[in-house]
Amino acid sequence: MGNSFGRLFRITTYGESHGTAIGVIIDGCPAGLAIDEDLIQDELTRRKPGQSRITTQRKEDDRFEIQSGVFEGRTTGTPISLVIYNKDQKSKDYSHIADKFRPSHADFTYHEKYGVRDYRGGGRSSARETAARVAAGAIAKQLLKESGMEITAYVSQVGDISAPDYKKMDLSLIEDNIVRCPDTNTAEKMIQLIDKVRKDRDTIGGVVTCIAAGVPAGLGEPVFDKLHAELGKAMLSINAVKGFEYGSGFEGTRMRGSAHNDEFFEEKGKVRTKTNFSGGIQGGISNGEDIYFNVAFKPVATIMQDQESVNEQGEPVTVSGKGRHDPCVVPRAVPIVEAMAALVIADHYLINKVSKSE
Amino acid sequence: MGNSFGRLFRITTYGESHGTAIGVIIDGCPAGLAIDEDLIQDELTRRKPGQSRITTQRKEDDRFEIQSGVFEGRTTGTPISLVIYNKDQKSKDYSHIADKFRPSHADFTYHEKYGVRDYRGGGRSSARETAARVAAGAIAKQLLKESGMEITAYVSQVGDISAPDYKKMDLSLIEDNIVRCPDTNTAEKMIQLIDKVRKDRDTIGGVVTCIAAGVPAGLGEPVFDKLHAELGKAMLSINAVKGFEYGSGFEGTRMRGSAHNDEFFEEKGKVRTKTNFSGGIQGGISNGEDIYFNVAFKPVATIMQDQESVNEQGEPVTVSGKGRHDPCVVPRAVPIVEAMAALVIADHYLINKVSKSE
Amino acid sequence: MGNSFGRLFRITTYGESHGTAIGVIIDGCPAGLAIDEDLIQDELTRRKPGQSRITTQRKEDDRFEIQSGVFEGRTTGTPISLVIYNKDQKSKDYSHIADKFRPSHADFTYHEKYGVRDYRGGGRSSARETAARVAAGAIAKQLLKESGMEITAYVSQVGDISAPDYKKMDLSLIEDNIVRCPDTNTAEKMIQLIDKVRKDRDTIGGVVTCIAAGVPAGLGEPVFDKLHAELGKAMLSINAVKGFEYGSGFEGTRMRGSAHNDEFFEEKGKVRTKTNFSGGIQGGISNGEDIYFNVAFKPVATIMQDQESVNEQGEPVTVSGKGRHDPCVVPRAVPIVEAMAALVIADHYLINKVSKSE
Amino acid sequence: MGNSFGRLFRITTYGESHGTAIGVIIDGCPAGLAIDEDLIQDELTRRKPGQSRITTQRKEDDRFEIQSGVFEGRTTGTPISLVIYNKDQKSKDYSHIADKFRPSHADFTYHEKYGVRDYRGGGRSSARETAARVAAGAIAKQLLKESGMEITAYVSQVGDISAPDYKKMDLSLIEDNIVRCPDTNTAEKMIQLIDKVRKDRDTIGGVVTCIAAGVPAGLGEPVFDKLHAELGKAMLSINAVKGFEYGSGFEGTRMRGSAHNDEFFEEKGKVRTKTNFSGGIQGGISNGEDIYFNVAFKPVATIMQDQESVNEQGEPVTVSGKGRHDPCVVPRAVPIVEAMAALVIADHYLINKVSKSE
Repeated sequence: MGNSFGRLFRITTYGESHGTAIGVIIDGCPAGLAIDEDLIQDELTRRKPGQSRITTQRKEDDRFEIQSGVFEGRTTGTPISLVIYNKDQKSKDYSHIADKFRPSHADFTYHEKYGVRDYRGGGRSSARETAARVAAGAIAKQLLKESGMEITAYVSQVGDISAPDYKKMDLSLIEDNIVRCPDTNTAEKMIQLIDKVRKDRDTIGGVVTCIAAGVPAGLGEPVFDKLHAELGKAMLSINAVKGFEYGSGFEGTRMRGSAHNDEFFEEKGKVRTKTNFSGGIQGGISNGEDIYFNVAFKPVATIMQDQESVNEQGEPVTVSGKGRHDPCVVPRAVPIVEAMAALVIADHYLINKVSKSE
Repeated sequence: MGNSFGRLFRITTYGESHGTAIGVIIDGCPAGLAIDEDLIQDELTRRKPGQSRITTQRKEDDRFEIQSGVFEGRTTGTPISLVIYNKDQKSKDYSHIADKFRPSHADFTYHEKYGVRDYRGGGRSSARETAARVAAGAIAKQLLKESGMEITAYVSQVGDISAPDYKKMDLSLIEDNIVRCPDTNTAEKMIQLIDKVRKDRDTIGGVVTCIAAGVPAGLGEPVFDKLHAELGKAMLSINAVKGFEYGSGFEGTRMRGSAHNDEFFEEKGKVRTKTNFSGGIQGGISNGEDIYFNVAFKPVATIMQDQESVNEQGEPVTVSGKGRHDPCVVPRAVPIVEAMAALVIADHYLINKVSKSE
Repeated sequence: MGNSFGRLFRITTYGESHGTAIGVIIDGCPAGLAIDEDLIQDELTRRKPGQSRITTQRKEDDRFEIQSGVFEGRTTGTPISLVIYNKDQKSKDYSHIADKFRPSHADFTYHEKYGVRDYRGGGRSSARETAARVAAGAIAKQLLKESGMEITAYVSQVGDISAPDYKKMDLSLIEDNIVRCPDTNTAEKMIQLIDKVRKDRDTIGGVVTCIAAGVPAGLGEPVFDKLHAELGKAMLSINAVKGFEYGSGFEGTRMRGSAHNDEFFEEKGKVRTKTNFSGGIQGGISNGEDIYFNVAFKPVATIMQDQESVNEQGEPVTVSGKGRHDPCVVPRAVPIVEAMAALVIADHYLINKVSKSE
Repeated sequence: MGNSFGRLFRITTYGESHGTAIGVIIDGCPAGLAIDEDLIQDELTRRKPGQSRITTQRKEDDRFEIQSGVFEGRTTGTPISLVIYNKDQKSKDYSHIADKFRPSHADFTYHEKYGVRDYRGGGRSSARETAARVAAGAIAKQLLKESGMEITAYVSQVGDISAPDYKKMDLSLIEDNIVRCPDTNTAEKMIQLIDKVRKDRDTIGGVVTCIAAGVPAGLGEPVFDKLHAELGKAMLSINAVKGFEYGSGFEGTRMRGSAHNDEFFEEKGKVRTKTNFSGGIQGGISNGEDIYFNVAFKPVATIMQDQESVNEQGEPVTVSGKGRHDPCVVPRAVPIVEAMAALVIADHYLINKVSKSE
């Protein structure tokens, strides 16, 4: 359970890192949408391991295949199955961790919950699962683009190094550097820090900021399914995420209402707000301004150092770091954040089509 | 839509602040649970307006009635209907705001989404809606208590004033002061700040921290319905919430993996972690340690000052502050945070009963 | 669980026959729909006990109240709460059946499932629960009417007495007699049969036929949520229903494809079928022709005779018939069948609004 | 939408008859269940085309592959992906029907609903979709078997030829003949009829009867999700099904309550019923007796004869019968009915685990 997400634009994912394949079924994508497969591949490539020296050096191709739901380049309204076959999935030797609980991984909790677990490469808890989200998100993005909406994320913090406010940067530069921070100076410092952390055989956390532009007023449901609550759940469901804030966020707790309130004005026949501490969402419903939010990622749990732990029998063991892992997850998390945001907004875009009687 | 929450322990709420009643239907509460109605009333009383000088002076009684699902003091497995009648719901004059959009309220977004809206007292967007959540949460708490789980929240920040870490305070003191902060010194400063803000006819934000103790390992689903993702959505669905973080949260983004990882050890036959940056949840599943998280509340949008805005025709108008409102929402938000946490954990407690084959 | 129905136009019901009230929350009714409260009351009156000599003589008023979701005569998009208070709910003496399992009632199965049960008047398993469905259905009907759809049901069989095909009768005559069969001769015979059965202190089964006219092509989902599968579930969820068939139904199993296939032709720019064995649904999706189906009701289980049974201890007991009950349920089932059909079609009417991309 | 089924044991299917593959994701199968892949293949083989002279002569292999969720022969609690690749899926020439609406097929309704459709071999509306259901059902059967439940279906009617009551036959003989009727004499007549119909280039309808034995009391939810309502929806969602009845069914409408009521008695410490007109379900909840029901299948729409119709432009056209199709669908429908029944009962078996508090 818990492998589906969304209400009308609904995805279901499957697959372990060392099984035959991972994949996603999209149920509820409207019929007649033109699908550009290159755009899907581009997103997968942004997420894939081995893309630069600051990510894991593991090589994965992440080629996808559409198995259903698209005919002659257009969606048919039937489920879209996207599969990514695991190359090279034959297990190397995992016996050194088969019965050990790696600190801050999901080994122990899976063991407690299910009694059995696929210990190879993290199994279902592997970050590889997010490739399916990115593929589905790429289709959601195409649906949103049709209606003038665009989702953009970037790395706004690595360790203690932070980028300026998004309004002060040129977001078209995000893909110009390997850390995906649009401010060149900050990007340089972030890369240096990640390099250092990697040499220390350690990892470091960071923040991804995301902006959804062009979202019309009216998306989101007033009570439990507030647009930011759905975005929050979506982000918190990504591996390694520890926090979510939108608009003024945690900083807003220090403000007074008189400073925080976004006064309305009229501009070219459209109701706008002078400030946007609301982050484009009021009462859980989009108001037409930019939606923006921050997503906090902890340092990756896999480090190249020895750590104390216990095994399934509760005996003390040492877990040794092996393999190729990301010193910092945020550069590769950027397309994942975008994908999840696109899925949420696409879903609410459809849900909102039935909010008014005719 | 969006007025239901939970999968097996599922609530549906209804009601506007100036209708006949608000209420909640709980579907999926197991049969045979003894219900203590006093405990439900206690929670509602913790939330109700007019409880102290630092909350709104509006008087609401918030008496509830059980209409179904409980027979001879025990749940029967059928839906539990809890209703709270709105006393005094005859509208006073709301004509001064009927067609105006109050800044940072839901007036404009409801108008865009639905075309029509009940403008009296905020209608469905009124914080009064949370009374239904608190009533339902009080039943969830009774279910959890049966299995040794306990949810406790308190005010950890008001404006710039912060309380110490939860481990350094005596949480039994929370209800000893009107701001619901267990550290007496901090509480005193918070109350002074709120007093000052109220005199300034302004409002201020704050943070509520919540701890779930006694939660067994195994609760939560691995992918989209991670336990912290569900908690996050629950909290973000509360009026005025701008952010959520659990465990190390946003601070954890500055840490290195070697410091952040929670090493396992064995204690009295139980697997424990030496530190708890994970916040009691690993891979989306509870690990048996304390679950703790922070919820950020913005300053209340209703201020006793004039603000610029527009009306439904897009014309410039002045919105004047009137009535009795909370200068700071966090003291009354404490039971709401607890209620939503209880609902999430009760739901996952039931869901987890089917995770293993026999 | 299981007390909600529908996906976008979604209802949740609650209440026992001897609690304070029964009711329904409608979540997802589009905003701006004009609500005629008299039409809701009319439907409740068609269902209520004591309406004629061939129904139970129990008197229930079945007055409803709208608690939320309607403002100045129009829906607001927020949940609509409809409540029907139970008059006179103080229990008379139920001690004679408190621990006995009445044959073919839900006493035993509730006992097995929940351990506890409200034995007064059947509790949640009482047919009184259907009043909530009728009230919600009356709102669904108003939504459908706006788009030219109309749902009509009648009694087509009582015991061995059957009415002619619906195309051969004048459906405007349904309400002209107390058995709700539009053919006067057949109605007369049905009434005589029910009278006789009542005098025998017995009960008899029957069939309700329903027609949905004006349903546009395109409603229903192709695989699991086929329109007729949803209608079937809706009907089978009504107390005492034993079967459902649509279009040619069970008779169609005896036919050959060459006779059963509905050939297409064009009429005034619209694709029509020459025959309608498909019952207006092909591949699970409406085709624009009349949707029609039959619903089989068993004889009511409560009879005015002594029956052998056991009690909660497994001991042999005699259950004696007491009270006032329906000798035949179908006349009162007519508005219930219509209500459930309206709910299904309203739901799929909304779902279909997102089937095509723009 | 509508491609998922079940609440806790939940399947999502995808795939068109002429795409790359069809498949199913099972989300919610408990961990630790031993999976026998041969049993899955056996069920697929019972459904596959070309299995005997009375089914279509089209050859499909229907080999499946497990892509995830099973590790070392046991389920892990993560989604189980079962894929069946379409061999030979390169389209032969479908231009003769590309823009024609075949009578009583889904061509017209898909066209109306989606605007586009994959016309090759029926696309998503192809009966091939049911292979995914059978594969998933084979896993549900293994879960049920663990707890002593068994699902058995057979052909009880072809055209006008009917088998005796299920209690009067030896159900172990079902697979002994190609029509899957356990009564040898009846089976012989059914086969002769199908042979005749096939020679007439026509098709014929029939009925499948299904029995679920060993189902414990307590499964099913009282109101909308009654066990028989869920079974009914499941059956009605199968291609070509026109009706569903359980227990006394439509015949029960002719009975009196005094004859129809199932009196209780005690046998070896278990509460039993003397008769079983209830079909093992009372008030929507299983009572421990055999659950039995009938499913009506119309004659297959594809006939080897010319038929009148229209094309997408509304112009009159002739549709000519071509290819290899089933003269009667019921023999191959037997495993599909069993699969859907197993899915419903497995789902409610899990749901019922949370009906009582501890």
